[in-house]
Amino acid sequence: MDLSKLCIHTITTKPWNLETAIPKYAAVGIGGVSVWRDAAQGFSGGIESAGEFIRSEGLDIVSYVRGGFFTALEAAARQKAIDENKRIIDEAAALGAPLIVLVCGATPGQSLFESRKQIADALAALVPYAQSAGVRLGIEPLHPMYADSRSAVVTMAQTNAICEAVDHPYLGATVDVFHVWWDDQLEQQIAAAGKADRLFSYHICDWKNQPEDMLNDRGLMGEGVIDIERIGSWVEQSGFSGYEEVEIFSNRYWAMDQDEYLALIVDSYRKLKGHR
Amino acid sequence: MDLSKLCIHTITTKPWNLETAIPKYAAVGIGGVSVWRDAAQGFSGGIESAGEFIRSEGLDIVSYVRGGFFTALEAAARQKAIDENKRIIDEAAALGAPLIVLVCGATPGQSLFESRKQIADALAALVPYAQSAGVRLGIEPLHPMYADSRSAVVTMAQTNAICEAVDHPYLGATVDVFHVWWDDQLEQQIAAAGKADRLFSYHICDWKNQPEDMLNDRGLMGEGVIDIERIGSWVEQSGFSGYEEVEIFSNRYWAMDQDEYLALIVDSYRKLKGHR
Repeated sequence: MDLSKLCIHTITTKPWNLETAIPKYAAVGIGGVSVWRDAAQGFSGGIESAGEFIRSEGLDIVSYVRGGFFTALEAAARQKAIDENKRIIDEAAALGAPLIVLVCGATPGQSLFESRKQIADALAALVPYAQSAGVRLGIEPLHPMYADSRSAVVTMAQTNAICEAVDHPYLGATVDVFHVWWDDQLEQQIAAAGKADRLFSYHICDWKNQPEDMLNDRGLMGEGVIDIERIGSWVEQSGFSGYEEVEIFSNRYWAMDQDEYLALIVDSYRKLKGHR
Repeated sequence: MDLSKLCIHTITTKPWNLETAIPKYAAVGIGGVSVWRDAAQGFSGGIESAGEFIRSEGLDIVSYVRGGFFTALEAAARQKAIDENKRIIDEAAALGAPLIVLVCGATPGQSLFESRKQIADALAALVPYAQSAGVRLGIEPLHPMYADSRSAVVTMAQTNAICEAVDHPYLGATVDVFHVWWDDQLEQQIAAAGKADRLFSYHICDWKNQPEDMLNDRGLMGEGVIDIERIGSWVEQSGFSGYEEVEIFSNRYWAMDQDEYLALIVDSYRKLKGHR
């Protein structure tokens, strides 16, 4: 089966460092990788050589994960976040990643409306820098269970609204089925993002029935309640033709043999695509 | 301070049975109690005498918790759920509770749109029975992190839509700040519910920053990120003048001395109401 549009996030196989993970992905025919910051920074030769290594193994670098966390009570702290995100853009450029995924932040004690305004302001300030580096920025709305301190952006509608307010070709959306599957406006908002050429990337995994952990109990595709095939069809119909990126945080899967786990990932992707 | 509009859910002080909890609540001047089904069923003299006991201690019975779980793949199972909810209505009437709180259900493998349709159908079938028993039904939208198998209704907008579709004076909404605080449509949707005389009850607690557990790590008012005062003002402006019901599931608080915990509840309520 063709795995050329399958991408894996390095954090999915967290026990493997980049030196180990990339040849493993390449050996089974996976087309792309999204590189987490710690994986790139941990590479022995530095970030630029990490990019060269990945390309020499025949893999596309799909995105650099992650920037964001723009909100804060004080203006000085918000400026510090913008500066930090410029460094992240520099790193993505050095790696050769065309996209940074953004977890936009939220500040306890501050309304989500105010936080979203701060996020839009920060992105307006940042996006010219991203363009000059040739790196696009994808806002990833997170599940509302992370609205306390991780992301005031919890829906695709809010993502699209921020993109419209900033209105720049280097700012768009990252859809992760785990975060948005519950939303009754999802189909329309994916279509709206696609129509505006703002759907930049697409993450898959599954929401298990009654997860044991709010962070690290994600499921493989097919293991949970999300109709990934349906959401995938909306994404495709919106005009998106990029990678399907497997991003799974799971204490259970991190604890198992990672070669066996990689085989499970490929198998669940195969089943999702109808090759049973 | 006047605690006559403060209500506590029996599950909040779960280690106490009804015989213990009611006099404890009464002793500190709390006005109302919402009775969980297990607490009523565990009362030695049966449900009717549980009601008499509570009233004899000077407390109002605010609601009976909980009915619902209307969704299922098979029609026979959905009919069974309606029958079970008729029994719950009978119990509420025997107790003397004017309201049942509904957790409406969700079925893994079934779309949330279909589940919400099933919920509306079940409620249309059930609400005449509730009226003849003199018991109102309050749909409680749950947080989207419970959309896998507990509730396909995750917003006040969806709650209002179901109420409009069924259109019956005995069907309305229960707002719990824990479940809806993140929703950017909350203010408008609370106002809409109030305008239609459909805001039946109001639950308070707090969402802690990065809870340790998806179910049982709720915070006392003031301990988390929710602007309860603001949401409370929307509820008040909508015309609601009923109880503020403290419903907290917390392994931490259940493990402590319940007299001390009750004092903390009263203290956090006092602070919320501005009596510092």
